[in-house]
Amino acid sequence: MSDFWSDIPGMSQRLSDVQRCMRDTLRTERFPLADAVEALIDANGKMLRPAFLLMAGDFGKKKAALLELAAAVELLHVATLIHDDVIDEAATRRGRPTVHARYSAKDAVLAGDWLFSRCFRLAAEASSPENAKLLARLVGGICSAEIHQDLEKFVWSESVRNYLRKIAGKTALLFALAVQAGARESKVPLRASATLSRIGYDVGMAFQIIDDILDYESSEGAMRKPVGKDLCEGLCTLPLILALRTNGQAIRPLLVSCRPDDDAVETVVKQVRDSGALDESRSYARRYTERALREVERLPKGPARDALRKLVSKLLDRRY
Amino acid sequence: MSDFWSDIPGMSQRLSDVQRCMRDTLRTERFPLADAVEALIDANGKMLRPAFLLMAGDFGKKKAALLELAAAVELLHVATLIHDDVIDEAATRRGRPTVHARYSAKDAVLAGDWLFSRCFRLAAEASSPENAKLLARLVGGICSAEIHQDLEKFVWSESVRNYLRKIAGKTALLFALAVQAGARESKVPLRASATLSRIGYDVGMAFQIIDDILDYESSEGAMRKPVGKDLCEGLCTLPLILALRTNGQAIRPLLVSCRPDDDAVETVVKQVRDSGALDESRSYARRYTERALREVERLPKGPARDALRKLVSKLLDRRY
Repeated sequence: MSDFWSDIPGMSQRLSDVQRCMRDTLRTERFPLADAVEALIDANGKMLRPAFLLMAGDFGKKKAALLELAAAVELLHVATLIHDDVIDEAATRRGRPTVHARYSAKDAVLAGDWLFSRCFRLAAEASSPENAKLLARLVGGICSAEIHQDLEKFVWSESVRNYLRKIAGKTALLFALAVQAGARESKVPLRASATLSRIGYDVGMAFQIIDDILDYESSEGAMRKPVGKDLCEGLCTLPLILALRTNGQAIRPLLVSCRPDDDAVETVVKQVRDSGALDESRSYARRYTERALREVERLPKGPARDALRKLVSKLLDRRY
Repeated sequence: MSDFWSDIPGMSQRLSDVQRCMRDTLRTERFPLADAVEALIDANGKMLRPAFLLMAGDFGKKKAALLELAAAVELLHVATLIHDDVIDEAATRRGRPTVHARYSAKDAVLAGDWLFSRCFRLAAEASSPENAKLLARLVGGICSAEIHQDLEKFVWSESVRNYLRKIAGKTALLFALAVQAGARESKVPLRASATLSRIGYDVGMAFQIIDDILDYESSEGAMRKPVGKDLCEGLCTLPLILALRTNGQAIRPLLVSCRPDDDAVETVVKQVRDSGALDESRSYARRYTERALREVERLPKGPARDALRKLVSKLLDRRY
């Protein structure tokens, strides 16, 4: 587990247990591409979604076994990553070859499908029927959001509202669900559970906005993905939207030819950086984070609240 | 609904109701590609899986509302078709443009994912938790089987056993599940339920073998798919396996260059036809059908049994 969790007591160990549960899931049946998927689990990032799920559970009266559910939520995330890589024809993910590159697009589509089914099955077996439904609804929501996003590619709309709606469906929903599932399973009282869901949603929004900022900011080493990737894929994210609003005349003509390896990409990235749009985007992220932090104070006092507060603040400042 | 069902009392109407339920499912939410998926539902084939599910339910004590569950099983089938078309880069399906061709591979992957989630959700909401788990296990099984099949492409193994295992996972399981789900939901007594599952399995095996025969036999008009498609995709199905066993020396060298539009495809198809392998394959299908028919006689007498017997016999003789 990454150093990220070192100051949240016990979390590193708990997430290792979730990873073990994910690996066990892959091994229970003769799943042909287990190795490739396992490599992706090992190289996995911070495991924020299962972490939020477990932390929400800590507010419950019942010490529920949340490992399987946390594993299901993270498998769902891994499944969407695998399908994303097929769709984007990505060769690497977190510095390792994608399933798609290592085997074939066909196998990657099927591996993702298999993981979806595994995730639903884990949820159906290890949690309440309500959580199984929740998870199914969620996958549907994410897919709809992704399709909407795809249909709007290369449109370069300047609507912030539209952008926020898209990332709500794509990311914030999954965070909110993870939190809701953990809370429900651990019988967290209704009021606290609703507060936790709102926190999950706001954190998800802030998380995605920061991700979109980092796409214009980071050097390839830190993020392990190239700068301007969203741009090349035709995604109009918040930094670009804000830059277009102040300096559209200069930027718009360049967007026509934004394709990987084109000089225009570099120019647009520079324009966005110079326009002050990154700072402005950060202030959007900060607003969501601040709202989440206010909600945190409404939760019952104790170590669970302290840990959650620490995590929420920390996410705003991430640089990778 | 197709003429296929005209001699099974009431089935045409019931399957229309299932289709309506599928369409309603697509419309309940703002699903962006609903039109494209709906076209696929309208052009849908015989809807055998939901039909078997409903017919199994007819043996139950309880008149259960099986429409949603039947719709879920068929949506699952449609989802796998959409992903198959992405994978095979197929331009048409049942004479209409595929989702993949009409939109993009990305949208087709996501549309399939969305349908999976919809199917799990329908199952989780409209049926028992056991059936939701059953469905999840099934999707996993099908994906595993498809991946195994893909990894063995262009290997041209002569193992009948291996072939039968593959089609069991790919097709027979889905038939058995459909039947099992219907039986469970309608509280069919255990013994009859087990018999029905075996019938579903055997019918699924026969169905796939006949499908594989038709790939060597049919003209493009009847099947609406080109002859020799499996061959071009590197699939070693029963007719080819049996032909290889009797005339491998002549056929094997040709397989090296079996690619679409290659003369070798036509030659191999002819060799398979001339080898008698199609008749021999039909006798395999007949054995499964006969076993299913024997099982049918163990079910309680009545119109439900008569209808099932009629359907099982009929499927053996299909030519499209």
